[in-house]
Amino acid sequence: ALETEKAFGLENAIAFSMGEKFQLDDILDAQQFDRDILTAIFKVARDMEGIEKGSSGSQILKGYLMATLFYEPSTRTRLSFESAMKRLGGEVLTTENAREFSSAAKGETLEDTIRTVEGYADIIVIRHFESGAARRAAFTAGIPVINAGDGPGQHPSQALLDVYTIEREIGKLDGIKVGLVGDLANGRTVRSLAYLLSKYQNVKIYFVAPDVVRMKDDIKDYLTSKGVEWEETADLMEVASECDVKHAVVMHPLPRLDEITVDVDSDPRAAYFRQAKNGLYIRMALLKLLLVGW
Amino acid sequence: ALETEKAFGLENAIAFSMGEKFQLDDILDAQQFDRDILTAIFKVARDMEGIEKGSSGSQILKGYLMATLFYEPSTRTRLSFESAMKRLGGEVLTTENAREFSSAAKGETLEDTIRTVEGYADIIVIRHFESGAARRAAFTAGIPVINAGDGPGQHPSQALLDVYTIEREIGKLDGIKVGLVGDLANGRTVRSLAYLLSKYQNVKIYFVAPDVVRMKDDIKDYLTSKGVEWEETADLMEVASECDVKHAVVMHPLPRLDEITVDVDSDPRAAYFRQAKNGLYIRMALLKLLLVGW
Amino acid sequence: ALETEKAFGLENAIAFSMGEKFQLDDILDAQQFDRDILTAIFKVARDMEGIEKGSSGSQILKGYLMATLFYEPSTRTRLSFESAMKRLGGEVLTTENAREFSSAAKGETLEDTIRTVEGYADIIVIRHFESGAARRAAFTAGIPVINAGDGPGQHPSQALLDVYTIEREIGKLDGIKVGLVGDLANGRTVRSLAYLLSKYQNVKIYFVAPDVVRMKDDIKDYLTSKGVEWEETADLMEVASECDVKHAVVMHPLPRLDEITVDVDSDPRAAYFRQAKNGLYIRMALLKLLLVGW
Repeated sequence: ALETEKAFGLENAIAFSMGEKFQLDDILDAQQFDRDILTAIFKVARDMEGIEKGSSGSQILKGYLMATLFYEPSTRTRLSFESAMKRLGGEVLTTENAREFSSAAKGETLEDTIRTVEGYADIIVIRHFESGAARRAAFTAGIPVINAGDGPGQHPSQALLDVYTIEREIGKLDGIKVGLVGDLANGRTVRSLAYLLSKYQNVKIYFVAPDVVRMKDDIKDYLTSKGVEWEETADLMEVASECDVKHAVVMHPLPRLDEITVDVDSDPRAAYFRQAKNGLYIRMALLKLLLVGW
Repeated sequence: ALETEKAFGLENAIAFSMGEKFQLDDILDAQQFDRDILTAIFKVARDMEGIEKGSSGSQILKGYLMATLFYEPSTRTRLSFESAMKRLGGEVLTTENAREFSSAAKGETLEDTIRTVEGYADIIVIRHFESGAARRAAFTAGIPVINAGDGPGQHPSQALLDVYTIEREIGKLDGIKVGLVGDLANGRTVRSLAYLLSKYQNVKIYFVAPDVVRMKDDIKDYLTSKGVEWEETADLMEVASECDVKHAVVMHPLPRLDEITVDVDSDPRAAYFRQAKNGLYIRMALLKLLLVGW
Repeated sequence: ALETEKAFGLENAIAFSMGEKFQLDDILDAQQFDRDILTAIFKVARDMEGIEKGSSGSQILKGYLMATLFYEPSTRTRLSFESAMKRLGGEVLTTENAREFSSAAKGETLEDTIRTVEGYADIIVIRHFESGAARRAAFTAGIPVINAGDGPGQHPSQALLDVYTIEREIGKLDGIKVGLVGDLANGRTVRSLAYLLSKYQNVKIYFVAPDVVRMKDDIKDYLTSKGVEWEETADLMEVASECDVKHAVVMHPLPRLDEITVDVDSDPRAAYFRQAKNGLYIRMALLKLLLVGW
């Protein structure tokens, strides 16, 4: 299932007409998406917001079966994908503890597990503790594979929902100023987000992190090479003074601990629960696109 | 979701006409139910007994999604709710181990979890190890919440099915004599049942328990204040001699150990497996009422 | 649910006409099947291969509910049954950890659990660590029970899919030569397979195993009594020289470790992943037959 996306480029951008095949066979990493396909996916996600019980959209995936193959637990992500599938009339096979697949044998390969599961389902959503596992699964599988997080690697549906949320909250993606705050060295979400934001024009990114967990050079170099302006600081206040804080949006992948207090929840700028809901719409869109096309 | 039930009182009793909104937004404790609403719920539960594959009722909840958020395992209760939902054409998101939701973050609040899950589902069935957790969930959630047991607190669907079973087995609830046997100090079921039985007339309750696990005073005082006759003893035989044993009904919430031997199972008075089935009908009724009304 | 199969014999063979009741109430062991019923089941399994999304067959089990009661984990077998049920439009109640059912009470009997679960579902698929557990479940249950492996005992759907795979790969079952390789003393699959192969004519079986894990005498005696030729050796090459290796088929119940290298996977004779898929069709056939008949 790994062939098409490699051949996919900007020139196909115009071909997103209804009923046509989706350009990607699998969702593996943020690098697969260009600006045109992001725009088109966000349009589908927006349509998903209107799908209600009994509406025509709610049976789009009737008869399709999704297997959630989770090698490490992530209830939040699993439920989001399973809800997305069921909201579209599809069905789910759940493996909350996919490690058990191999434990009896003390060592079945991921590839063998995939070849078995692809016989049972129409699409696989995989969460794995090893970077690259989703790509290996996609290489083996004859059905679409979605990477729901592979260790320190990628979590592309999370990156998409972050960008989608900015667009829904702010109304645009060109010309925005984004502060990325926290542990930037180890957070896979912020890395993917920085990558996707580089697709848009006049974006300015502020990296706000203590010295020991600063954003790594590879991303900074990448942004520079793409003409994206960025600044680095350890002081959130300094960034705030440069941004239009009144129209700012506070996002968070959740769960939160005490980095955002509940006092903020009632502020209209606190978008994190809307963001979680947007994750549902993005996943509905991805499942629809991979299984039945545009 | 906690507003309506507070305003709910006897005066609404007449308004249970088909298609109307259910008076309760959530099912949190036995105290929410008065005699009229119990009668009406039992009528719906009775209708549920007639729902078979392909019957018109079997698609009542098509398109609805229930999340079972279980912070402690209870396979029996979980399956009963999930079967109820599916028998009505609804779908289920299962979290058998909801503690994991927060474990990664070592401390997401219940409230944050609820605000995420309410984005994925239409109704939440919660089982929790802390008394009051279901009420906190209902206070946060914009969708209905059913308490499937919160620690030493309440388990209202269990209490309802107990009363429903008595009515189905005996044919009436006024004028009955009920012996509650076992650990009465710690059993949440018997406390809720005593509470609900006080809604009926001329009920006599016998508390049969060893001294160390006697029914606590709060319930006894409550019954006295409601004019319910009760007696206390450690001797089951003494109670038996005062009751119409020939038409008695033996109930048990299950699982049982050796307090009832399998020899009793074939006795027509042994109602415990019918009682488990009644739990299904009660839960079907509650899901129907909360999601689509009378 | 244990009555019919005992009365079932060859004389009913002719009665497999569409819509008629299946001859078996439960699927408990390989000994239940004679040649005629195997032929008929394989024909239904073959039909299942043609069931696609939206085809008329895909709603055969709509409204039916299957409970997977797994007392020990077996993700592979569970997913195969759950996929089979969902491919036919049915629904599933999952208990991946059925031991928990009784753990709270430190000792609910299997029989009590079954009497509860049969109130929630239309068919039970049970996996248990104790030989004979499935038979006990079937004796108690008023609904069909399928044995999905009971300890060192039986795993009949696995045995059926093995024979079905041989027929699909080779095109016949009479006159075949079969080498059973590996730990023959403890493998429940090979024992059941030897049993089923004895139904066919001119079958020759080669037992290939190190001395310490040779096939036990009871099976060898059984085969002799049925007129099935067999030979025993520790040398696979010796068997290979006597068989038509060019048209051989390599099967494996999976998971594999290093007994078959991935180099073999691309060989057209490597049937193990097709075999896993055949398991799906066999289970679809069994669910259909038990729930709605021929």
